[in-house]
Amino acid sequence: MTRLTLAIDAMGGDFGPCVTVPAALQALESNPSLYLLLVGYPDTLSSLVAKADSALVARLQIIPAESVIANDAKPALAIRNSRHSSMRIALELVKEGKAQACISAGNTGALMGLAKLLLKPLDGIDRPALMTVLPHQQKGKTVVLDLGANVESDSAMLVQFAVMGAVMAESVLGIARPRVALLNIGQEETKGLETIREAAKILRDTPEINYIGYVEGNDLLTGKTDVLVCDGFVGNVTLKTMEGVVRMFLSLLKSSGDGQKSVWWVKWLGRLLQKRLAKRFGHLNPDQYNGACLLGLRGTVIKSHGAANLRAFAVAIEQAEQAVQRQVSQQIALRLEAVLPKSD
Amino acid sequence: MTRLTLAIDAMGGDFGPCVTVPAALQALESNPSLYLLLVGYPDTLSSLVAKADSALVARLQIIPAESVIANDAKPALAIRNSRHSSMRIALELVKEGKAQACISAGNTGALMGLAKLLLKPLDGIDRPALMTVLPHQQKGKTVVLDLGANVESDSAMLVQFAVMGAVMAESVLGIARPRVALLNIGQEETKGLETIREAAKILRDTPEINYIGYVEGNDLLTGKTDVLVCDGFVGNVTLKTMEGVVRMFLSLLKSSGDGQKSVWWVKWLGRLLQKRLAKRFGHLNPDQYNGACLLGLRGTVIKSHGAANLRAFAVAIEQAEQAVQRQVSQQIALRLEAVLPKSD
Repeated sequence: MTRLTLAIDAMGGDFGPCVTVPAALQALESNPSLYLLLVGYPDTLSSLVAKADSALVARLQIIPAESVIANDAKPALAIRNSRHSSMRIALELVKEGKAQACISAGNTGALMGLAKLLLKPLDGIDRPALMTVLPHQQKGKTVVLDLGANVESDSAMLVQFAVMGAVMAESVLGIARPRVALLNIGQEETKGLETIREAAKILRDTPEINYIGYVEGNDLLTGKTDVLVCDGFVGNVTLKTMEGVVRMFLSLLKSSGDGQKSVWWVKWLGRLLQKRLAKRFGHLNPDQYNGACLLGLRGTVIKSHGAANLRAFAVAIEQAEQAVQRQVSQQIALRLEAVLPKSD
Repeated sequence: MTRLTLAIDAMGGDFGPCVTVPAALQALESNPSLYLLLVGYPDTLSSLVAKADSALVARLQIIPAESVIANDAKPALAIRNSRHSSMRIALELVKEGKAQACISAGNTGALMGLAKLLLKPLDGIDRPALMTVLPHQQKGKTVVLDLGANVESDSAMLVQFAVMGAVMAESVLGIARPRVALLNIGQEETKGLETIREAAKILRDTPEINYIGYVEGNDLLTGKTDVLVCDGFVGNVTLKTMEGVVRMFLSLLKSSGDGQKSVWWVKWLGRLLQKRLAKRFGHLNPDQYNGACLLGLRGTVIKSHGAANLRAFAVAIEQAEQAVQRQVSQQIALRLEAVLPKSD
């Protein structure tokens, strides 16, 4: 196994080191070829690492940072004042080749801005896109992008997202000739926004992409497509809507056993059944697919939910490992060369 | 009780009269002051009505139509050829004052186009909006619009939607000073699309509206706001996403009792629990809140899901009854006069 080094913005997210450090230790435990650079306040990180197994600590290095970008800071201002911040240093480690990917649960806008500034977009990419992999009902997975890296997208950007999503589905999910669809409000060609119709036209004429047409919101989890492309505003609202509904169901399931007037063995059986149901729905739990990948850059950057818990942040680290091992960034660069119009 | 007359496009929807006629009979049974005009092919409708209770049939009249607008017809073409169609005749009955509202499960685009053409928008409304009422976790309800009457909306339209939604929440849901929010991808003022930020600015300066700021997709069902305003593209995708997830959960719940290797009493207990869970989740079932109201016209038009079953179509008829009884259209006209800038 080749050595894999990742940089973690250990201060980012709602819970900071309380979540990132234990998640980092867990990741080290489950992958013996993993090395981690934890960027943050040395004292805080040292004390959290102190009690860990020394064999794990040997594969971990603390990189000092002097400041943390606040979750609610305005991205433009935060980027201007980002020198010596944990997020920026983590990204610089990737830029300098000292780490192969960076993971942060910090300020999304700042992370995307800094990543673009430091790592630069690939040739043929106007703007990077946030991508995630959703589990669907057919037990497979769907690549969805953009989730909010950009507020508005023109048709050329949607096509670039389609190319990046297709590469992701092929190289990470192992799907041959992945089906690519555009998210729209109807299935007829004449439906929806002008930019989407234009992108559809280009994709239909791109033989390298297995474009299957429009898909509607209700098919987000049905497995009708392997790659679902939309602009960042719609993607963000859609994914958050889905997460809100899933979380509500899971919490209702969890609470539905309480407070009933039954004898003990009925209650016990009830809980048993609920556990089984929760397990069945569990793969739709946002904690289990945390980690959006910022695609289209000369380097790998994973954005974790700000509110990620230990389990969720560990999933984000796993995503980074996979993206590096499958060489997603390099694969995208190759595919772009083949598909996109040459500028010269 | 005052007599209430509604026109039903009995031929519309995926199942046509097989669903609309039984639903109509059910509505007549539950509301003794209701009269229904069923528009469609006389022979088909007569034979379906033949076996019904004569006391119900006495409050029902069949209005002949010669054609049906196909579900997948292009709206512009369908409207041009709509003379003598069941949908158009149902709308004309409202225009002529013979019915107080119209319900159709037919072609959405054609219904909105024809409704606008025949019933005309209220003063101060650029374009009507599709609105629905969603149940939320706090056992209350949220008014959501636009759900796709318009593909794109400028800030003035979003403000008009906010006014219509607030009136709806007040007069139909009985919420005093309903909270109004804009759907966006973050809660900070600087987030999202230009049109949304502009609409926020206007709403903040409109004392008649209790504007509370931005709400994100994950709060669609949490009851954070009484009225949620978005453009038709985003609203359509969001609602369909929610419906897709809810349907998936309900079907998983339903199927999770089957095929298990257990003794009879464990199975029996399992089914009991599942029933209770399904009941608890049932209020989120799309069938139970079917019926989007086309707001902003000089008349009441209810759009049912095309795939509505008997129960769902009956809910759409109930929605029409409520909208007429609470005088939603008139209330909106009054509020618009008070809030919107005068043109002269």
